[in-house]
Amino acid sequence: MIAGTGRAVVLLSGGLDSATVLAMATDEGLECHALSFDYGQRHSAELEAATEVASAAGVTDHRVATIDLRLFGGSALTDDIDVPTDRSVDEMGSGIPVTYVPARNTIFLSFGLAFAEVIGAGDIFIGVNSVDYSGYPDCRPDYVAAYERMANLATKAGVEGGQLRIRTPLIQLTKADIIRRGLELGVDYGLTVSCYDPDRAGACGVCDACTLRRRGFAEAGAHDPIAYRGGPTTG
Amino acid sequence: MIAGTGRAVVLLSGGLDSATVLAMATDEGLECHALSFDYGQRHSAELEAATEVASAAGVTDHRVATIDLRLFGGSALTDDIDVPTDRSVDEMGSGIPVTYVPARNTIFLSFGLAFAEVIGAGDIFIGVNSVDYSGYPDCRPDYVAAYERMANLATKAGVEGGQLRIRTPLIQLTKADIIRRGLELGVDYGLTVSCYDPDRAGACGVCDACTLRRRGFAEAGAHDPIAYRGGPTTG
Repeated sequence: MIAGTGRAVVLLSGGLDSATVLAMATDEGLECHALSFDYGQRHSAELEAATEVASAAGVTDHRVATIDLRLFGGSALTDDIDVPTDRSVDEMGSGIPVTYVPARNTIFLSFGLAFAEVIGAGDIFIGVNSVDYSGYPDCRPDYVAAYERMANLATKAGVEGGQLRIRTPLIQLTKADIIRRGLELGVDYGLTVSCYDPDRAGACGVCDACTLRRRGFAEAGAHDPIAYRGGPTTG
Repeated sequence: MIAGTGRAVVLLSGGLDSATVLAMATDEGLECHALSFDYGQRHSAELEAATEVASAAGVTDHRVATIDLRLFGGSALTDDIDVPTDRSVDEMGSGIPVTYVPARNTIFLSFGLAFAEVIGAGDIFIGVNSVDYSGYPDCRPDYVAAYERMANLATKAGVEGGQLRIRTPLIQLTKADIIRRGLELGVDYGLTVSCYDPDRAGACGVCDACTLRRRGFAEAGAHDPIAYRGGPTTG
């Protein structure tokens, strides 16, 4: 595989995972260009967090692509479908969750591919994880490999002999591993938002994303610096 | 390969090719859902044409996704780069043209994939052509095959055992073949827009798209019903 160009596109959601990915890409000495999406999320906290995380990491630039996934519907994250709460990790593990947004990672990576081609980036980083998100088809290693193969046939770089890599450094890590690695790299998790339903008083603490996050910090033996509604963190 | 669901997503640009594809999908007896893109084209004639073509074909629905490809730039179709004119077909054939929009078909197909997943469509039709657009990496059969493979790993349908097909019925046809097939199916090419730089007086007649279109009608021995600036069609 041909080495990268020294320049990377990093998909940045404002969550814990992508903040860690950005720190890992920066730690490799890559010039990082962050890309976030305004896709009709039900809350804006995520995008505000992405801007703060990008700034703290000192990225070369941070762009926000507006795409209307509500046009199609089909997910609790973009539709008026209730987000499930108080599920155990075992309950989350089976089937495809209602928070799955159809083709979301495929759309996000495709915008990342356009950005990479225009700036000449050799790597696109995405914080997908097949451990905690085993129910999402587009978080699995075989999906990522198929995407990379397609991407190299889709672009000028591929035609002209370059090699574009889809980098998923978190794909096999547990949440606790991710948090440990991020803390080593100096990530300020106080800037990140994981909750599916946050408000000014903090994260809900009971949706699947909060449950995974709190368990991750507990297993990593670390303090979660964000506020949870109803009091201090218990994780 | 598992048979389709009887329902299809058809990517519709308002051009001659996708109007023909829509007629071919309809002719198969599929319930067609058209999808167009407002992607910062320099002119709106294309989208108006798409709406008329969709209506004439009697589609089940027609949605327009707004996506800002100008965010990245890099193409004469979305940037302030001059569109080449008065090139012979031989001159067009070499290299990747400035009218190539980075990752455009990948982004379009990814929205098509989201739409297909939400409505349960088994086929996504796209009017790519590797004869006249040999310079575009994302119009080649190996690209389309790689996209289809990725798409089946990306989605619920793929995970749950379905099979999604990316249909490219024009991929090996000449422009004349496309026009002959469309005329057999009753396509009104007077509703379509091919020109990269149209105005109220009609198509420019000299950009690559006009040159290919005029040659296609001439070779098919058919009359091109659209208006060209500077007088009646010579094609």
